[in-house]
Amino acid sequence: MVKKKDIFEVFFRKKKSMILVCLKNNVKSRYGSILAKEVDCTYSHTVKILQEMERSGLVSFEKQGRIKTIKLTDKGTRIADHIDKVKTLL
Amino acid sequence: MVKKKDIFEVFFRKKKSMILVCLKNNVKSRYGSILAKEVDCTYSHTVKILQEMERSGLVSFEKQGRIKTIKLTDKGTRIADHIDKVKTLL
Repeated sequence: MVKKKDIFEVFFRKKKSMILVCLKNNVKSRYGSILAKEVDCTYSHTVKILQEMERSGLVSFEKQGRIKTIKLTDKGTRIADHIDKVKTLL
Repeated sequence: MVKKKDIFEVFFRKKKSMILVCLKNNVKSRYGSILAKEVDCTYSHTVKILQEMERSGLVSFEKQGRIKTIKLTDKGTRIADHIDKVKTLL
């Protein structure tokens, strides 16, 4: 599967794209710490990327008591869909 | 439009993605030299990217006499479609 990975990275910045796709495909990834592990990023880098995405209206943060969860917006979901489809095609 | 460009580049490697999208949207871009100008790349860098895409089955080269033209494959067209849609969404 090395080749598949390579050509995906020709077009995409892998970790940032994977954060979106993970958020779409996996309910568990809604916690920043779990998401960070899934995409093999540090927690602080993941949070930085998420804040960037929030400013662009792709994700939103929800506070449930002490816990902060991450939710894809409609726009974020549609973009994650397209990226996921490209990933499958490549 | 600066913001739109910025968030696109969060996920995509701009020039490589734009080469695919240009090939889809513009018949003229099928010549390497014109394509290179459109995406603001050197000719030799554009050719290198195109050869990489050929190896992955996204584009094919056609010789018409002395002139070499570039054609998107079906797979390449589908991927270009998705990238173009994300670009519009962002």
